[in-house]
Amino acid sequence: MKNILILGGDGYLGWPTAIFFSSKGYNVTVVDNYFRRNACENLSLRPLYKIPNLINRCQEWKKKSGKIIKVILGDLTDPELMRSLFQKKTITSWPEESCIDNKPDTIVHFAEQPSAPYSMTNYKNANFTISNNLLVTNNLMYAVKDFSPHSHIIKLGTMGEYGTPNIDIEEGWIDINHNGRNEKFLFPRQASSIYHTSKIMDTDLLWFGVRAWKLKVTDLMQGPVYGFTTKEIKNNEKLYTIFNYDEIFGTIINRFVTQAVVGYPLTVFGKGEQKRGYININDTIQCIDKSFSNPAKNGELRIFNQITQTFSVNQLAEMIYEVGRELNYDVSIKNIPNPRIENEDHYYNPKYQGLKDIGVKATLLNKDILKDFFIHVEKYKNNIDRDIIFKGIKW
Amino acid sequence: MKNILILGGDGYLGWPTAIFFSSKGYNVTVVDNYFRRNACENLSLRPLYKIPNLINRCQEWKKKSGKIIKVILGDLTDPELMRSLFQKKTITSWPEESCIDNKPDTIVHFAEQPSAPYSMTNYKNANFTISNNLLVTNNLMYAVKDFSPHSHIIKLGTMGEYGTPNIDIEEGWIDINHNGRNEKFLFPRQASSIYHTSKIMDTDLLWFGVRAWKLKVTDLMQGPVYGFTTKEIKNNEKLYTIFNYDEIFGTIINRFVTQAVVGYPLTVFGKGEQKRGYININDTIQCIDKSFSNPAKNGELRIFNQITQTFSVNQLAEMIYEVGRELNYDVSIKNIPNPRIENEDHYYNPKYQGLKDIGVKATLLNKDILKDFFIHVEKYKNNIDRDIIFKGIKW
Repeated sequence: MKNILILGGDGYLGWPTAIFFSSKGYNVTVVDNYFRRNACENLSLRPLYKIPNLINRCQEWKKKSGKIIKVILGDLTDPELMRSLFQKKTITSWPEESCIDNKPDTIVHFAEQPSAPYSMTNYKNANFTISNNLLVTNNLMYAVKDFSPHSHIIKLGTMGEYGTPNIDIEEGWIDINHNGRNEKFLFPRQASSIYHTSKIMDTDLLWFGVRAWKLKVTDLMQGPVYGFTTKEIKNNEKLYTIFNYDEIFGTIINRFVTQAVVGYPLTVFGKGEQKRGYININDTIQCIDKSFSNPAKNGELRIFNQITQTFSVNQLAEMIYEVGRELNYDVSIKNIPNPRIENEDHYYNPKYQGLKDIGVKATLLNKDILKDFFIHVEKYKNNIDRDIIFKGIKW
Repeated sequence: MKNILILGGDGYLGWPTAIFFSSKGYNVTVVDNYFRRNACENLSLRPLYKIPNLINRCQEWKKKSGKIIKVILGDLTDPELMRSLFQKKTITSWPEESCIDNKPDTIVHFAEQPSAPYSMTNYKNANFTISNNLLVTNNLMYAVKDFSPHSHIIKLGTMGEYGTPNIDIEEGWIDINHNGRNEKFLFPRQASSIYHTSKIMDTDLLWFGVRAWKLKVTDLMQGPVYGFTTKEIKNNEKLYTIFNYDEIFGTIINRFVTQAVVGYPLTVFGKGEQKRGYININDTIQCIDKSFSNPAKNGELRIFNQITQTFSVNQLAEMIYEVGRELNYDVSIKNIPNPRIENEDHYYNPKYQGLKDIGVKATLLNKDILKDFFIHVEKYKNNIDRDIIFKGIKW
């Protein structure tokens, strides 16, 4: 039975990933430092509903499924904690005094500060984003090299690493012919926040590790994720994943649906022609699953663009406007001066074929999915705090 | 009179840069955390001769020239120290209780862990390299943005950021035509150590700052520097810059001359066909001076390849062998298994025109320069510790 280690297993995506692999019968261990919970608390960014702590959620999962997800609460920027996970040394936070007995076959690495606006709030949070994200990645890379060089690292990157160049965005790599000679390079990256830049740096670091030590790495360039639940958790409220609708941790579709439900105008930044690739949370899990069962080879940095559709902000706003109106919500759209520095009208043609090639079937955003989404958010309407929706964090 | 702030002003290049600008009459302030001194002490890597501490050197400089270089001893990964330098708040370490009264017009940023082998010794030093180099750069970027957006940042990068690609290396940027469309990108970077990778990350970070906040940045992609002195300090031993000949902090030409003087075989790693661009320490100062007097514009990341010649390791070894033999040293060359992971025989064609265009006149390595170098090292022959020359730090 394979052992799967999920770093950042308390988060929006880490938690449903843990549940998914546990439901399939794998030995799952999650590690988290509660950064997201603490930041929400400190910045008064209450999620749409309360989420039990990680140990309580795992206890609930055990009650429901009979399966144990081991929990380790700790900070992975500490290299000794990271290394202990590969040396049968770690004592879990739950179940009590249980030891991790086997090296992980696969590590799914979500343990990063995940918000562009958070990274841009001030120099302290910029420093935190850089040092947290890079030290966790470096500690992981060294631990795998030193103790378990055949483990497969699945790392969450972001489409934001590429920015919005005037050429087609390939999947991770590009062949360049220059003055009559050829070379294959990482596709050039130029991001538009400190957070996204930290993810470029992660890629740089892993690319070094792959070349130097023949590590096995899959780097998933993910677009903004939407959705409130996955198949495995939808029938048990106590297992729900965290859902933020604020400007800092809420992704755009999740925010817009929530805004529509309370009649808060959909906040389109600038012209609204910013295009991005998006993905349903169920497809995120599918992508990780397919990457897991079709691993990268030693010495390979395999990069997939993890999106299923592209939309402009205007297109998203219009879809949510229409569905909201059909459901009799008082939806409106408001263009506001862009607080960010980004291109508001640009070429955007990313390729995303690799994950399809290993078997991912896309769930495309449509009116039915959005209707379900409205119905779900409606249940928690009374929890919604209009004051945290938009703060205009400036770049 | 312009104010110049030199971060890392106690180092091999930072110190002669400080002396140069002070000799020209500028107001110079140096900041250093003594990382290099402490690392040499902790790893028993004694430099070729003893160097007075930074305050004593500045006192000596004042005696000789009548000029004051202000000294601040402290760690620039602390953002508050960095920010205080731009707010007339810092109390100097020397002269006593003097205040920095003006914002710097130009900041020359050398305050990084500068050694590839050091970064590869273990995971702790890898983490230190990443967090030190990135946090100092980020703190600098934010301080300039917040307090002095018209200050010119001159940052030392490295040719190692490019690695050894199979195409010509342009100066920082490349135009890519792909599927019929065009975009200008940072030249793709892929380095071969954690240190060099941290420098790629610095470039990523500054490129973000330039686009977001219109900063003025010159990034100097420097090759390995050689030489023991600059014009301004050569007649006063107490003003000499630090000279390492060990594998960790000693650059290759400096090491090879020292090895030749004590009859230690020149250690050529692998085939020895590794090609790099090199530069004389006097030309480093010239390049910084010309960059200073021809600053980048706001919103410009200007990149120069700061080298004057390229050589393979074999070519360097042969030149030093010949000069050593002419001076009757017992020089020999020994090919040893390469402890590093790098291409040993590769295409290498870097461009380096930009600094010439703003007036830098190259000092080319020749037999006379090498003879002077041998004579200089000979004076300190009794200080040379053969045991620290080669340790074989593995990648």
